Amino acid sequence: MHPFTQRRSESVAALGETGLIAAIRRWLGAASPRAPYGMGDDCAVLPAVRGAQLLTVDSVIFGVHFDAAVSARAAGAKLFKRNLSDLAAMGGRPRAAVVALALDPRVKIRWLEEFYRGLAAMSRRYRTPIVGGDVARLDGSVLASLTLVGEAPARAVTRAGARAGDWIFVTGRLGGSLANGHHWRFTPRLAEGAWLAGRPEVRAMMDVSDGLAKDLPALTPTGAEAALVAGSLPRRRGCDLRAALGDGEDYELLFAVAGGADLARFTRAWRRAFPRTRLSCIGRFVRAGRRPAGTLKLEDHRGFEHLHHPR
Amino acid sequence: MHPFTQRRSESVAALGETGLIAAIRRWLGAASPRAPYGMGDDCAVLPAVRGAQLLTVDSVIFGVHFDAAVSARAAGAKLFKRNLSDLAAMGGRPRAAVVALALDPRVKIRWLEEFYRGLAAMSRRYRTPIVGGDVARLDGSVLASLTLVGEAPARAVTRAGARAGDWIFVTGRLGGSLANGHHWRFTPRLAEGAWLAGRPEVRAMMDVSDGLAKDLPALTPTGAEAALVAGSLPRRRGCDLRAALGDGEDYELLFAVAGGADLARFTRAWRRAFPRTRLSCIGRFVRAGRRPAGTLKLEDHRGFEHLHHPR
Repeated sequence: MHPFTQRRSESVAALGETGLIAAIRRWLGAASPRAPYGMGDDCAVLPAVRGAQLLTVDSVIFGVHFDAAVSARAAGAKLFKRNLSDLAAMGGRPRAAVVALALDPRVKIRWLEEFYRGLAAMSRRYRTPIVGGDVARLDGSVLASLTLVGEAPARAVTRAGARAGDWIFVTGRLGGSLANGHHWRFTPRLAEGAWLAGRPEVRAMMDVSDGLAKDLPALTPTGAEAALVAGSLPRRRGCDLRAALGDGEDYELLFAVAGGADLARFTRAWRRAFPRTRLSCIGRFVRAGRRPAGTLKLEDHRGFEHLHHPR
Repeated sequence: MHPFTQRRSESVAALGETGLIAAIRRWLGAASPRAPYGMGDDCAVLPAVRGAQLLTVDSVIFGVHFDAAVSARAAGAKLFKRNLSDLAAMGGRPRAAVVALALDPRVKIRWLEEFYRGLAAMSRRYRTPIVGGDVARLDGSVLASLTLVGEAPARAVTRAGARAGDWIFVTGRLGGSLANGHHWRFTPRLAEGAWLAGRPEVRAMMDVSDGLAKDLPALTPTGAEAALVAGSLPRRRGCDLRAALGDGEDYELLFAVAGGADLARFTRAWRRAFPRTRLSCIGRFVRAGRRPAGTLKLEDHRGFEHLHHPR
């Protein structure tokens, strides 16, 4: 469905601001608890918890992260899942979300309803209430940012911590996400991330969102480089090496396992826990300049560039 | 300064995404701690605290919440302060913020630098680190959403809790905010909000952002109505009653004090704590239909409507 309409009666302008906020609360239903634990006050109140809190924010914009070929419901779900994937990459679990919406008054009510129903479905599936939000006017587009608060029951696994000699692993398969719909169909690796956070041999973790070639440097320790084995890169159907390294929006977990770990034991434990989630050892971090012959040089491949100046 | 440029060399497109993120971290400086307590990982990690957490989100959009007449630095500061005002209205104190930016690649680097320097200045003044963010492409505009995490050391004062018979108070003066620059010059009432949360006679509180006429119903208990005394409404210079009730963007605290409270003692204590912040008792909540003659009927005045369908 295209988000915009020329008919005032079908547009959010017909609801007015107060009507729109009431509609959003109706669409969210049980996904949005009552104030002060949900919408309807100046802030939402989250009950106390022990331990560190996690915080992340991500956006979707019409024409950038989705288009009229993606259903509004899938676009809403994608926004929620992008953030869940960031949380998964820390080994965290979600607690609550807030959504900032900015939209043209000509956005279709039906389109927006489906978008929020997509958010609500993910809120229920991942038991993460949507506790607040903001609605503002933006001419010519529709955009939503979701901020997710989470917690790390075991430990928060950061991107820092890998060392030269560590093995590099990735879940699932890479490449072709925009072409084959994976970019909105994916399941965030929350269970896998939480499991990995409980394994002491996992030293560092992140999610692959801009493409392996662009993301892996963030996991690479200072004074080291990644030596990837091209043949062990798990590619999605129809994808060549370039696509697997550069397409982005994979939402898979990329992590480092201590060089001295018992890999056979680790992968056996993984298969018992996640028999249906592919796990691939794709290479190793080596001292800079010591990359073995035949391994991939990452600098030859680029990830997705978000900002181009129009001519 | 106008945010956009036709010269590629002056635009954020010249930085590219990686360069832009590096620049943002430089502009934020000490306002942005290192990962994992700040930017640079999948999520930010906030150390554990006792007690309830508060969560709120708000946005500013070019052409809606500010224009080229407002400096980029003031626009950034405004975004931070809008959120702080929401937190103040709960009696909370800020802990951390994340910022989602969406912008046209033609946005001037210098404009964006000033915007982030405005955010950074507020981050330092209110000791609230900016711990994460997101950058995305949005054609034709520039928008930023800020999510604020806070805590409530005493109690979180919600909008619910007022009763018929309670007195209605407001801080500062109302009206004319967009015309006289108060909408970006204001100081969020954090100290006042925290003080009020410590007073047991304060039953409910909110901030005035859409105009008193539009906001007060949210504080009004079921089965009651507000009886306002027109002469006691604190108006900003040059504002008539209509402006004071409807202009919005006042960012003052509106709260209910128990009907049986000792008002003289309460206002004396206020003046000792905040000798320079005006406090006005503007009326009382009464049972519905029992509004005394000569008091204001709120329904005759409207607040700011955000969504109009263009013709």
